[in-house]
Order: sequence, then structure tokens, then C-alpha cells
Amino acid sequence: SSNGNGHAQRKSCWYEEEIEENLRWCFALNSILHTGATQYQDIQLLDTKPFGKALVIDGKLQSAEIDEFIYHESLVHPALLHHVNPKSIFIMGGGEGSTARELLRHRTVEKVVMCDIDQEVVDFCKSYLVVNREAFRDPRLDLVINDARAELERREELYDVIIGDLADPIEGGPCYQLYTKSFYEFTIKPRLNEGGIFVTQAGPAGVFSHTEVFSCIYNTLRQVFKYVVPYSAHIPSYADIWGWIMASDSPIDLSSEELDLRMKQRIKGENRYLDGQTFTSASTLSKAVRKSLEYETHVYTEGNARFIYGHGSAHKQNQA
Amino acid sequence: SSNGNGHAQRKSCWYEEEIEENLRWCFALNSILHTGATQYQDIQLLDTKPFGKALVIDGKLQSAEIDEFIYHESLVHPALLHHVNPKSIFIMGGGEGSTARELLRHRTVEKVVMCDIDQEVVDFCKSYLVVNREAFRDPRLDLVINDARAELERREELYDVIIGDLADPIEGGPCYQLYTKSFYEFTIKPRLNEGGIFVTQAGPAGVFSHTEVFSCIYNTLRQVFKYVVPYSAHIPSYADIWGWIMASDSPIDLSSEELDLRMKQRIKGENRYLDGQTFTSASTLSKAVRKSLEYETHVYTEGNARFIYGHGSAHKQNQA
Amino acid sequence: SSNGNGHAQRKSCWYEEEIEENLRWCFALNSILHTGATQYQDIQLLDTKPFGKALVIDGKLQSAEIDEFIYHESLVHPALLHHVNPKSIFIMGGGEGSTARELLRHRTVEKVVMCDIDQEVVDFCKSYLVVNREAFRDPRLDLVINDARAELERREELYDVIIGDLADPIEGGPCYQLYTKSFYEFTIKPRLNEGGIFVTQAGPAGVFSHTEVFSCIYNTLRQVFKYVVPYSAHIPSYADIWGWIMASDSPIDLSSEELDLRMKQRIKGENRYLDGQTFTSASTLSKAVRKSLEYETHVYTEGNARFIYGHGSAHKQNQA
Amino acid sequence: SSNGNGHAQRKSCWYEEEIEENLRWCFALNSILHTGATQYQDIQLLDTKPFGKALVIDGKLQSAEIDEFIYHESLVHPALLHHVNPKSIFIMGGGEGSTARELLRHRTVEKVVMCDIDQEVVDFCKSYLVVNREAFRDPRLDLVINDARAELERREELYDVIIGDLADPIEGGPCYQLYTKSFYEFTIKPRLNEGGIFVTQAGPAGVFSHTEVFSCIYNTLRQVFKYVVPYSAHIPSYADIWGWIMASDSPIDLSSEELDLRMKQRIKGENRYLDGQTFTSASTLSKAVRKSLEYETHVYTEGNARFIYGHGSAHKQNQA
Repeated sequence: SSNGNGHAQRKSCWYEEEIEENLRWCFALNSILHTGATQYQDIQLLDTKPFGKALVIDGKLQSAEIDEFIYHESLVHPALLHHVNPKSIFIMGGGEGSTARELLRHRTVEKVVMCDIDQEVVDFCKSYLVVNREAFRDPRLDLVINDARAELERREELYDVIIGDLADPIEGGPCYQLYTKSFYEFTIKPRLNEGGIFVTQAGPAGVFSHTEVFSCIYNTLRQVFKYVVPYSAHIPSYADIWGWIMASDSPIDLSSEELDLRMKQRIKGENRYLDGQTFTSASTLSKAVRKSLEYETHVYTEGNARFIYGHGSAHKQNQA
Repeated sequence: SSNGNGHAQRKSCWYEEEIEENLRWCFALNSILHTGATQYQDIQLLDTKPFGKALVIDGKLQSAEIDEFIYHESLVHPALLHHVNPKSIFIMGGGEGSTARELLRHRTVEKVVMCDIDQEVVDFCKSYLVVNREAFRDPRLDLVINDARAELERREELYDVIIGDLADPIEGGPCYQLYTKSFYEFTIKPRLNEGGIFVTQAGPAGVFSHTEVFSCIYNTLRQVFKYVVPYSAHIPSYADIWGWIMASDSPIDLSSEELDLRMKQRIKGENRYLDGQTFTSASTLSKAVRKSLEYETHVYTEGNARFIYGHGSAHKQNQA
Repeated sequence: SSNGNGHAQRKSCWYEEEIEENLRWCFALNSILHTGATQYQDIQLLDTKPFGKALVIDGKLQSAEIDEFIYHESLVHPALLHHVNPKSIFIMGGGEGSTARELLRHRTVEKVVMCDIDQEVVDFCKSYLVVNREAFRDPRLDLVINDARAELERREELYDVIIGDLADPIEGGPCYQLYTKSFYEFTIKPRLNEGGIFVTQAGPAGVFSHTEVFSCIYNTLRQVFKYVVPYSAHIPSYADIWGWIMASDSPIDLSSEELDLRMKQRIKGENRYLDGQTFTSASTLSKAVRKSLEYETHVYTEGNARFIYGHGSAHKQNQA
Repeated sequence: SSNGNGHAQRKSCWYEEEIEENLRWCFALNSILHTGATQYQDIQLLDTKPFGKALVIDGKLQSAEIDEFIYHESLVHPALLHHVNPKSIFIMGGGEGSTARELLRHRTVEKVVMCDIDQEVVDFCKSYLVVNREAFRDPRLDLVINDARAELERREELYDVIIGDLADPIEGGPCYQLYTKSFYEFTIKPRLNEGGIFVTQAGPAGVFSHTEVFSCIYNTLRQVFKYVVPYSAHIPSYADIWGWIMASDSPIDLSSEELDLRMKQRIKGENRYLDGQTFTSASTLSKAVRKSLEYETHVYTEGNARFIYGHGSAHKQNQA
């Protein structure tokens, strides 16, 4: 067929997401690989033209084949590199497997507990996301299906790094409780070894969008930990800057060169996104975001979330 | 998952067609069943929420599962019912198989030649369109892969009804030649038996859209045949009224009651769309369309199409 | 600027309507002439490329410049022509002014009461819809701002024709009550003169969409009136067939020729859409719709609508 | 009207841009303030819900009210601050007026020549963009309507800073010539005073998109200047990271603190986006972009652009 025809056909099917009220982001589609619903969420795997295979949960893009490395390298490596010798890791969420994949590249890592609430999503990702297959089979990975809070409270062992790879703390959303001051203080912190580091994804961190949750998570964490380091990166498929925050009671400050050295020593293969300079840039926030974080006063507490209990037993099941 | 989530998900994937410049028609998608390109055209089979499975050729919706019966009953039955005893039929195009399916419901029909240029589309429809499988296996069907004009000129036998189930006569498009006065006069008419009827799909027939091709096809046919009957019906998935035209040198005029009687006598099973009154309504055009047909002066001729030859050998292959 | 550029620009702004769940209809925009909210509804006047100026109320296209004549000629003329000598008319709703415009073309008409609940919409249409200005100034027009039911009950005079130009009877919607059996029986019918005719718009009437409200309005009216005549027409800007229903205790049956004759005698200027044959076609429904109307059993009653009262005082104000 | 209705209405009109093939970015619209065509380009001023007033040229978003400060502060301040004492400035393009506005905030600046080819765009922005009115009236501004290259070649005076605020160097596009090595070498460089700095917008600079033009402009500039500093920032309304490049034969290296100090001394009012740390982050590129710039080999030359001449006289007029 002619180019003209091919062109027309290429653009007839679209994935469309309302990133926020009044703002849409649309990808031309090659195909819809899977559509289904688990006990907790709706799930789609799409083959998109601009970003490759895309995992969509509850109508929101979670991760796209061509740029998920930016998100997952940023989530995992800064915390592990800043730690002296990270051996045991706990992932809250992470069912997609990419967080585990990046963790398991670290030679120091001996044990990774990945705790996701949704068996079906995990099974789905295991079978569809070829790039994470090896990680799912790694003997160091201990996959647990449970509510992350309950699991952390149940276990007595401590971890060198705890990683929050959960949905954003939307009020009434499934994960709100896992972003509160009391959760950080009474559940996370007691489960960290001396020198341990907690890191969490922290939502959009753009010049306007950082006030949605990024600045509040930052402010909540600095109520609980002595050292808190926010950083961010642009994820093309999200059409925004994304944020992460590390927190610890031990200092988190390595030079760009020290980070590069540790990467070479500890990580198998080469990072595609993160190196020392990238982290320097990522953790040097722009003026507007920096000021806003500095002056943020909101703290996530159980109190704020109290109304959630009104939803009854459902909310517990919905924790990722 | 909650209804809210389900709702969001249901609407994230869309098929979008520009029906005309400045006008779009969009269907939510369940899945993209097939995307491919044949020698002649691009082809997609989509599973749409509002209209079921939809066949899209070169970026244009051809036929949708839930309402193709309107198109195909309207194309086939009026001509066959107005004929005294239709035994042999020739279909130009029709690779989808639905036209043959409707024809083969007629007890009088002994032979159907279906001549489509695109082997791959025919194979595709054979395997995907379950509703037409029986028709494709009917021993009365003689499927030929060829250019319809060449095939009609090659054959010496005559037909009771010839059916044009082709793309619209867009200038430069693949089918223009099969709508010209000389084609009707020197190819179609000589291949009709005494009392034979020619019927063709004739493009959009809405109060504004009928001037695109419907009125010109009508005017061209009345240069060649003594009796010409235009009629139309609304096809929901096309977002428009569609038109067909019958032409013959014998009178085409049965009452609503006579049509109903012949339907009962000749057609296996019951029509979903067409009966006598429906045809009465369909063939009584609204004022604007009627006047416009009456005063139409344009005639499709080879002369008009001469410039097409400039495209070289391609145009011949592109006939459907 | 180049054509290429112009082309890109022409298509960058779009009006988008979800005609039904999973089905979108989009018009390229020239401009947004007005956006506002009255006491009762949101209102927009758009300048669209395919359909000219378009009035949108509560996110639903009401009427488009280039094809509103189809709707308004179909709503008004059949009832007035079938009446022996229509002098006094009552319009429920109709604030746009187009219904009055068509009525006032009839030489027999001496008085038109137009009763719309929304002063601001009426004022808006008066000032923006140039084509209806003359009608708004016609001394035979008596414009009343009130709830149509209250107004009809308050008045003692009788009418030759009563016209329902209201929103569809969606449960919980503002107009449900004005489509019930008891409203027809105890409010409409007693306000009709001997030989009087009631006509109402009756929602979508397509081969699938007629089951939404068209068949139920038909069935409700035939509980109350001896003669009930449904008819329909395709409105391009609605992307569907639309329906209207006439009802009377006197027979409604004129031939196509008689209608044409009365049009010539009574109507100033020439209709663009409706003539005798058009009405013959419009009132001859296709098989599926005809059967469905015949077998419809649902009747709109106050009982069905009782729950509406739960919404409290709001519902009364919301009647158009 | 109810919230529900209001909600529906708010989303019915959309601006839609294909950022790249297969990728769309859509803003809900309040209104279309202006649509027109100048001698050189199509122009629209839209009032969008997510980004305020938006200037669209030839179907591409140029600048949006709520985040144009990021682009214009990034384009202007780094170059002026790194210069010892910037008095005279030449802007190629910049008809919108925002670049001049930022320049004129510098107390050192005595003269700004702004050279845009399109009188009508300049007039349009003068009258519509309230935020730039003061700049257009500043006596230090010398507004010239001409092709930027011709103007620079015609003038004999030298400048402390030359700013390129032009469309991207797309082959066949209007501005290609203003990004070539020979233009930099024989037109720009000879017009810079000792210690002078050239800065240009340099297209998308995202982890994937930087290979379109950013890396080539960088590589072309480093053929001509001793010191070349690329930097970038996320512009929400562009849905991407954007890049700029400074070039000089004098060193460009101030610490974050020195930049902050100069800002305080030289700039009236406070920057919203840029400060010392922001520039540190902006000019520390992420690994992938850094490597790609380092290894880039493509140089824009007249040779590459030679075929453009084939378009005849048109191309010259089309320079912005």
C-alpha cells in the first residue's frame, strides 16, 4: 500500500490519558496486548508507537518499555550507592519486577523481599515483561503477596534499604497510609539497620506539579529522618518530571566521583541513565521547587487520613 | 476494581476516523485484532465497543459487525426481489463475503461469481468473519481473484443481476473506472440478461453528502439505463445516510406488498432491516436530495478520468 | 502561509461530544463565540467548521446552523399542515426561537405562546441567532418565562397545536414530567381545541437508538390519544436519525399531494427540507423501528418518576 | 447548573498538537482569542485551561502564559550574567517580546536590537501580550523588521551578547541557515565584542529528543567557539525538556554563588525560575545526553542546506 494509506492507518488507534483535568496525553497504538481486571485493579498492556509496550493500571500509565529505565535506575541506585554495603532490601510494591531487576544488579545484595498485594499483576508481569524474567528467577528474590505494612510489621528482620514503589498518596487512594509520618516513624524506621536508607518514589516533581505530593512527602519525611534528599528526573512517557526522596539518620552525601566509583565496583553492567553527574543534577532542584519544599508545612498523618476508614474494610485490601 | 476505575479504563483506547475534513468519528476500543497490509491496501480488524468487530481498509471503516446487515440487505435484496427470477449473479468486489451471504439466501440463485482483486483481503475475511463462513463454503459461490472489469470483459456469460460492491469513485482512487458511463454502457449492460438489473453502492446520501458521488452516479446511470431507482438508509457506524442505485432497461416497480410476498417466497430466514415498507421509505428521497438528483448534470466518463493514467501501471492493480 | 501550515492550523481546535458512552463526535472549531452558565444550564455558542454556528447546552449539541432547518421544519410543519386551520399554538420550551420562526411562516397562525423556563438562554439566542431575530420581534409571538407545565395549568385558553420542544425524558432530568401519561392526559389534552394536534420531539430514532426514548414516548402517547404518528429524519450534526411524534383524537392522514398543496397555500417561503414525499418517507419507519414501536410496553408515568421528588426543590426549577 | 454539567462543558473544546508523529498533547480550551495568517505564518492565540494564553504559530505551540518564564529566563539570563558587563544585545527573532522583556530587566543593558522578519506577528504580540507591553515601549529597544542574517550583515556595530530566538533548524524550514557553521563563523562571531557571548535556543533536549537538533547545534558551535555550554530545563507546556547553548571565545564558568550575586546586583525584580543552583543543575546534563553530545559528529553547513535553494526565492522570505 502507498505511504499515504500507511500513514492514515498508523494513526487511527490511540491510547488517551487525562494526565490531569484539562490535559491529555495520547499515544498512537500498534495493538492492545491485554486487558483485564484483578482483584484490586484494572490492568492493560498496550503496544504503543512512541513508547513501546506500556503497562497501564487503573487507566494510568505505570511504565513504558523505552523509558522505564529512567524511573527504576533513579529509584534504586542512589539509595544503594549511598549505603556502605547494602545486603538486604525490602520493596513495598514493585510487582512489575523492574525495581527488583535493578536491585539484583548490585553485587552486594544478598536478599530482596518484594512485597506486592496483587498476585495477578505480579503473575501478569512475570509472563509479559520479558526484560524482568531473569530477575523473577533470581534466587536472592523472595516474592511475598501481602499488604506491605502488614508484612513489615509481621517480620522481625531489619533491612539495609527499604524501597517504596507504590502508587501516590491520594486521599482515599489505596496507598495513603504508606506515606504517613506514623508509618515512617513506627513501621519503616524500626525496620532499618544502622546506616539504613529509605527511598520512595514521590510523585510528579515539575515546576508546578511538585506541590501535589512531592513537597508533602518531603516534609513528612523530614519530620522523621535526620537526612532527607529529594531528587528528580524527566520521564518522557509521563510528560513530566518525576521525583524520589531518600531519607536516613546517617548522612547521605557522596561526590559525583565517589558515586561513579561505587557504580563501577558494585553494579553489573552499565547504567543507561544514572551516573554521578546525573545524580548531582537530579538532586539540585530548581529554584521554585527548592523554595516550595523548604516552606512546605503539610505533614501526612493518620489523622488526615482518618476519614478513609469510613470506606470500611475495602481500604485495607486496596493497599498495594 | 471499582466501577470508577473500570470506567476510566474502558475509555482509554480509541479508533478515530476523519469522516471528512474537520469531522471525526471515534469508537472506544476493546482490542486491535489484526493490522496488516496487502498488495493493494492496508487492513485492520478492530473490536470496538459501540459497533462490535469493525473492518477498516486504508483507514476507512468498511463494515461493522452490528450494522453491516443494513448495508448488505439494502445492496442485495431490492435488486433480486425486483427481478422476476434471479439465477446468476456477478459481484464486483465484495471480498468481505457479506454480499455473497445475502445473495445465497435467495432460493432462486444458482450461481454467484464474486470477483475481488485482493486475495489477501478475501483470505483475511474468510478466516476472521465467522458470520460469512457458510457463504464462502456454499457450492454456488465461484470466487475469482481478478480486476472486475477485466473479468467481466473476459467472460461471455450473461447475468441476471450485477452488483457493484466497490469503493467510491474518488478521482485517482482505485475504482473510478468502474463508475463511468462507458463502463456501464459497454461492459455492464452487455453482460446483463434480458430483464437484468444492475445495482451499485453509491456513497453517502445524506442531505448534504449526497452531492459527493451519489447524485453523479445516479446521473451517469440514467444516461445508460431506462429505469434508475436510487434509495438510501442510515448506517449508524458510518454516521451518515448511505445510498444505492438500481438500474435496468425493464421497469423496476413493485408495491410494498409484492416485495413482502416475494421475500417470504424466495428468501431463507428473515431480514433484519429490509421489508416492503422499509424499501418504500428508502426509495422515497427527501426533497433536497430528490431535487439535487433531478438537476445533476455531471457524468462520470473516461475523459474525466484520463489524468489517472498518468499514475502509470499502478492504477490498474489498485482496482478492487 | 503555505497550504501545509494552513492545513495543520485548521485542525488544531476541536469540539468533542460523547454522543453515547464509547462514541465520540468531533467538529473542528473556528472559534468559541460564547461560554457561560445560566441559572439552569451551561451554554456555549461555537463556530464549527463542518456545521457552522452550534448551540451547546450542558455539553450536548442542541442545534447547528447548517442543519437546524431539518429539525425545526420536521417538528413544526407536519402538525400544522395536518390541522384544518391552525391559529393558536403553544410551544413548551423552544427558547432558541427556531420553532417560533417556522410557526410564524404559517399564514393561518394568529398567536404563538412560547414558554421557556430560562430567561438567559432566550436572551442569549435573541442576541446571537440572527436567523431568528425577525421571529422574536413578530407581534404574534407571546414569550413567557415559566415552567411549561405550570403555565399550561394556569392558562384557561385552548390551542390548535401544542408543541413539545424540550430536552429528552431522562430519569432525573429536568423534563421527565413533561413526557408522562398523566401530563398528556390531564394537562396537554384538555388544552387542545377540537381537532387539535400535539407534537413533540421524541429523541433519537435510529435503528438501534430508538429504544432509548422514542418507542416509549410513542407508547405513552397511544395510551392517551386515538391517532399517533411517529416519523423521523437524519440530522447530520447529531450523527443520528431523530424522531418526532404527532398525536390527536382526530385522524392525521393526508396524502403527499395534499400536504404539498397546503404548504403552497399556507406557508410563506419555501421549505428546504420538508415536502409531501419527504413526510411520506419520514413517517414510513423501517422494519426494526416499526416492530419495536408496535411491541413497546413501557409507559412513562408519574409513578416511574416518583423518585425524582427525592431531589427536592431543585427538580421543579430545572424544568425547561 | 450542576457541577456535573459544568464538568462536561469544561472539557468539550480542545487544542490538539501532534508533538511528534504518534504523540499528541491536548489542552482543554476556554476560548480561541485570535486566528489569522500573516505573510509568513499562521498564528493563533488561544486561552487554554491548563497553561493560560498560548501563542501557536503554524500549528506549533510557541509560548504559554504560565510557563514562558522558564524558557525566556533560561534563554536570556545565563548569557548576560556570564558576561562581565553586557550593554548591547542583538536578538534574532524574538517578536513575541518576552526575550526583550527579560533583557531589559538587566541594569547594564543600554541597547537591545530585536530583529524579527514578521511585522504582523510583532504587532499582534504587542497588542495581545499585556505582560510584554512595557518592554515594547522601553526606549532602549530598537525594533527592526528584517531578515536577521541580512540585518546582522548590514550593520557594522558589535554586540556583547547575540541571542538566537528562532524556530528550529529543520531542513527546508525557514531558519536552517541561521544555525550553520558558516553563519556562526562569518556572521555571528565577527559581530561579537571581545568577551562577547552567543546564546541560542537549541530545540528539545530530552533523553531521546536531544538527538533531533540539540546535539547537532552543540557540535556545530564547538567547531567555531572555544567555550560551549549546553543546558536544559523542563517546560511543562512543551511536554519535554528544552535546550539552550551558550558559546564564546572567553571562558564561561561562574559558580552558583557568583551567579546569585550578579543576579542580585544586575537584575531588576526577582527571577521566578533561574538562580545559581538551577543553572548548575541545568548545565549538568544527564549521562545519555552528555555522551551523545560528546560523540556527535554532524555539523550544520551550507552544503547540507544547499538543496534548500531549490525552493527558490521563498526560503529567504521565510527566515524569521
